[in-house]
Amino acid sequence: MRRKSLAGAVCPIARSLDVIGDWWSLLIVRDALRGMRRFSEFQKSLGVSKNILTQRLRTLVAQGILELAPATDGSAYREYVLTAKGRDLFHVLVALGQWGQEHLDPPAGSRLTMVDRARGEPLRRLELRARDGRVLGPGDTIMTKIA
Amino acid sequence: MRRKSLAGAVCPIARSLDVIGDWWSLLIVRDALRGMRRFSEFQKSLGVSKNILTQRLRTLVAQGILELAPATDGSAYREYVLTAKGRDLFHVLVALGQWGQEHLDPPAGSRLTMVDRARGEPLRRLELRARDGRVLGPGDTIMTKIA
Repeated sequence: MRRKSLAGAVCPIARSLDVIGDWWSLLIVRDALRGMRRFSEFQKSLGVSKNILTQRLRTLVAQGILELAPATDGSAYREYVLTAKGRDLFHVLVALGQWGQEHLDPPAGSRLTMVDRARGEPLRRLELRARDGRVLGPGDTIMTKIA
Repeated sequence: MRRKSLAGAVCPIARSLDVIGDWWSLLIVRDALRGMRRFSEFQKSLGVSKNILTQRLRTLVAQGILELAPATDGSAYREYVLTAKGRDLFHVLVALGQWGQEHLDPPAGSRLTMVDRARGEPLRRLELRARDGRVLGPGDTIMTKIA
C-alpha cells in the first residue's frame, strides 16, 4: 500500500511515524538495542524474509538510525550499529513495551518483561514532567506553534 | 501488504506494534487525545480517505482503544472517545513527539512543539527510572522471562 508521506509534517509525532512507523523498523531497533549487530542475528530474531530485512536495514541506514561498521571479530561481515539518533528511540520502545505489558495479554505461560539490569527489579512507569517537576498526564500538555 | 501477526508475541513491544503499529491508528489516538471525537474532525485533520478512516476507527474500537458514545450535542452523530487503554498510549505519543522534535527537521517556518498547558513551557524529556529512583538508559535495562 502506497503511503502518504508525513516527512514534512509540522507535528513531530507525524514526522517520527513517517520515519519509524513501520513495525519492522522498530523491532530491528529493539534488537540492536539489546546488542544484535548482524544481518543473520536480526533475521533469526525477526523471522523475516531476507528481502524485507535488507530493505529495512538500508532504510534505517539512510535515515541515520543505524550505521555500518566493520565486524568486531575481524571477519569480512559488516555490522549494523545504532547511531545516537537510533539509541534515542529507547523511550519509544519502552513506552510501547510498558503499554503492551499493561494492556495486551501475553501468550499462555510465557511473558517477557523489561527490568532494571543492575537489580533485576521491575521498572517504574515512564514519567513526563514539567520544567518545575510536576508529573504531566494527557490533559496537561498541548501542541503549540513556535517560530 | 499482508502482515505477519505479532499478537501472540512474548515481547510486549511486539504485541503493541501488532495493535498500533499502523501510523494512522496512532495519529487518530493523537487527535483523540487533543479532544477530537467526530469522524469529520479526524478526516479533516488527517486528510485520509473515508474508507481508510472507517476501517481504522472500527479496528481501534474492536481493540478497546476507542469506544463509541452518543454525541455530546444531542445530535444523531456518534462520537469516538478514548478508553483508559487508549489514553495510556500518551507516553508512546510523547516519546515519538520528543524524538521527532530532536531528530527530524520540521518544514521551514513552522513547527509544533508540545508544551506544559498550565505554563506554556517546554517539557522535560521522558524519564525511565528504576524502583530506587536511578534514571535508566538503553544499557541499563534487559528483557527477562517471567512466569
